[in-house]
Amino acid sequence: MKSDLDALMQSRNLDAILIVGSATHNPPMYYLTGGGHVSAASLIKKRGEGAVLFCNDMEREEAAKSGLKIIPMGTYPWQEMFKEAGGDVALMSAMRLKRMFADCGVTGGRVGLYGHTDVSSTLATLIHLQRIAPEISIVGEPRDGSLFMYAMETKDESEVARIRKMGGITTEVVRRVAEYLTSREVRADEVLLKEDGSPLTVADVKSRIDLWLAELGAENPEGCIFAIGRDAGIPHSAGTPTDLLRLGQTIVFDIYPCEAGGGYFYDFTRTWSLGYAAPEAQALYDEVKAVYDKVAENLDLNVPFKEYQKLVCEEFEKNGHKTPLDTAAPVEGYVHSLGHGLGLNVHERPWSGLTAADDNLLKPGVVMTVEPGLYYPDRGMGVRIEDTYWVRPDGKMEKLAEYPYDFVLGMKKWKNK
Amino acid sequence: MKSDLDALMQSRNLDAILIVGSATHNPPMYYLTGGGHVSAASLIKKRGEGAVLFCNDMEREEAAKSGLKIIPMGTYPWQEMFKEAGGDVALMSAMRLKRMFADCGVTGGRVGLYGHTDVSSTLATLIHLQRIAPEISIVGEPRDGSLFMYAMETKDESEVARIRKMGGITTEVVRRVAEYLTSREVRADEVLLKEDGSPLTVADVKSRIDLWLAELGAENPEGCIFAIGRDAGIPHSAGTPTDLLRLGQTIVFDIYPCEAGGGYFYDFTRTWSLGYAAPEAQALYDEVKAVYDKVAENLDLNVPFKEYQKLVCEEFEKNGHKTPLDTAAPVEGYVHSLGHGLGLNVHERPWSGLTAADDNLLKPGVVMTVEPGLYYPDRGMGVRIEDTYWVRPDGKMEKLAEYPYDFVLGMKKWKNK
Repeated sequence: MKSDLDALMQSRNLDAILIVGSATHNPPMYYLTGGGHVSAASLIKKRGEGAVLFCNDMEREEAAKSGLKIIPMGTYPWQEMFKEAGGDVALMSAMRLKRMFADCGVTGGRVGLYGHTDVSSTLATLIHLQRIAPEISIVGEPRDGSLFMYAMETKDESEVARIRKMGGITTEVVRRVAEYLTSREVRADEVLLKEDGSPLTVADVKSRIDLWLAELGAENPEGCIFAIGRDAGIPHSAGTPTDLLRLGQTIVFDIYPCEAGGGYFYDFTRTWSLGYAAPEAQALYDEVKAVYDKVAENLDLNVPFKEYQKLVCEEFEKNGHKTPLDTAAPVEGYVHSLGHGLGLNVHERPWSGLTAADDNLLKPGVVMTVEPGLYYPDRGMGVRIEDTYWVRPDGKMEKLAEYPYDFVLGMKKWKNK
Repeated sequence: MKSDLDALMQSRNLDAILIVGSATHNPPMYYLTGGGHVSAASLIKKRGEGAVLFCNDMEREEAAKSGLKIIPMGTYPWQEMFKEAGGDVALMSAMRLKRMFADCGVTGGRVGLYGHTDVSSTLATLIHLQRIAPEISIVGEPRDGSLFMYAMETKDESEVARIRKMGGITTEVVRRVAEYLTSREVRADEVLLKEDGSPLTVADVKSRIDLWLAELGAENPEGCIFAIGRDAGIPHSAGTPTDLLRLGQTIVFDIYPCEAGGGYFYDFTRTWSLGYAAPEAQALYDEVKAVYDKVAENLDLNVPFKEYQKLVCEEFEKNGHKTPLDTAAPVEGYVHSLGHGLGLNVHERPWSGLTAADDNLLKPGVVMTVEPGLYYPDRGMGVRIEDTYWVRPDGKMEKLAEYPYDFVLGMKKWKNK
């Protein structure tokens, strides 16, 4: 939680943190500012003190909505410093950054750098800063175990309420997609048709998804996966836009939108087969569902997340599938890890991979996905089932949005022969 | 253009470039890969050779759509390197990056770093790389004058066609907003009402904008500005969500969506006053429109963009407004620069600020905005007019989307007394 930041800085021996980039689609900056139209910003927080937000002069009123102390960049005489830097913009930025640190009482020590922004200009500035302010040492961290990944790992109830609301929006969109698909007319060759009688494509379905998400107050910054047939067998295939929707094919529909303005995400997957299912596909689905249920029933407080990854691997291996436990980087069978934390990032701590550190626990406040799957691209099929869970303060596991687990969706205007 | 990359690398004495981050919402990576569902990637291009795209194994098929040479990250034995690095993820990443460079024939020299991604993990990796591969020197550049800003500055006709299409979508949404606003019922206190009789807010209008953008195949990653009254007088105020729509107030509507999937942008602004306008607001609008027309009529091939900024400042100063020519960082009057290039970034080269380098020319292939404005927050008003232009290969200036310049929009269900 946010209140852990000072302790996390202490544990990393950081005297201050510097966050760069805009307030939207930049999780660390959003986390401390609450988002909004603050496009060119820097934030400095000295350990034990409040954060200071440096903003474009034109964005001063938007920046003030964060409730943080604001310093408009116009405070630093740009033209004068530009001359002093001999017209070198990177040097000028470093000179200004040094003054910004001084204005926050940071005159030396270790400073952790965070943010999602342009790496090139950041590096150019830091190379100069190292020279003109060697007493300040700027350091980075691998993302997966960074200070913000630890802080964000546990959510307070207001954060969970926002994720739950996104779960409601997400499943409402999934419900509309199911309703739309099952209401289509079907051609003799089992292709679904649009209102105008032309074949329905993956691109058509995706544009409806975007529309419904916008209508319900969400955005879709990373797109979604709507993959049919062979594509469904490739876990991260987003689907081929020109593919036609056909009966009896596995469709993996993985949707991970966020609040409009770049806030909290939800993550959800169902696998469908329209009209009927090949027996082999039904068997694959049943296997995944059985393993999903086994995990969901056994989720337990303060257990390392990877214990459930091991459980899933063992279950699938019993049935002869390859998994990361017995195969390095398998391309068929069970080819990914069980889930991940979820919040301002689609993927965040806790991690469930077999090599994840033991401190990736299902502790109170964690919000995480559970998403086992099996993939056989050469057999033209794949299955994944995913829900998002919250580890409640009382230790109970709560699924944050309910949705049925039907695999075969009956077509209203088509009868199985 | 893309074909300029090798020459631009040569001019910067770069032996190679490294781009990091995902293929969407990351302009340099999108520029070379064409976007798509490639979330964790690195791209290395040695000068004079083709680019190599390193991707997550699960995303190999999506990555292959780029047409580039693909190397899945699974090629590098993760677990073995992790052990060798003593469990230090940043060191492991640096070791892998060194091998990736070697596989592209880059064993030393200067490498330019680009991309919009997590700066913290990037810095952590580079600090290790500097130590284990001192023969490779990774350098950054200030964004505004970077290699990619230069390459992207001139567009080929296929890029312009995509921007023009976004112009059509953008102005269609603006037309729908105007139609929606002018069809509203108006309360006795001149507040617009929704269908259900409750007051219409800025948030309501924005959710319709998002909906219509999604419907037309666009996304709105940076939001839009819909600012009324005093907010209209603060150029970068996005508007207050709870503000009510009222007659006779200036509304600055600045909309800058991009193609779904994070591609090309458009940028467009109109200022409206619903029902009627205060004489003072009408006069302000007329002044801005006259200056806009003067610029549009005088745009000329190969002239430095900032010449028009000077022209605008001089014109506004004649009428007694403050401008950046006579005032450092003015907060009322004309407070920004005239425009900017537009493409995969909302803001890119050429720049029009008074201190912009002379090589920011209106040369063939440039796409740029023209957007003069006047702002008086304390008088509760602001005006901006913006269109996007293309400098055609034949030297003519083409506005990429037409839209009327009406300031007062007549209300269908309200009569001026």
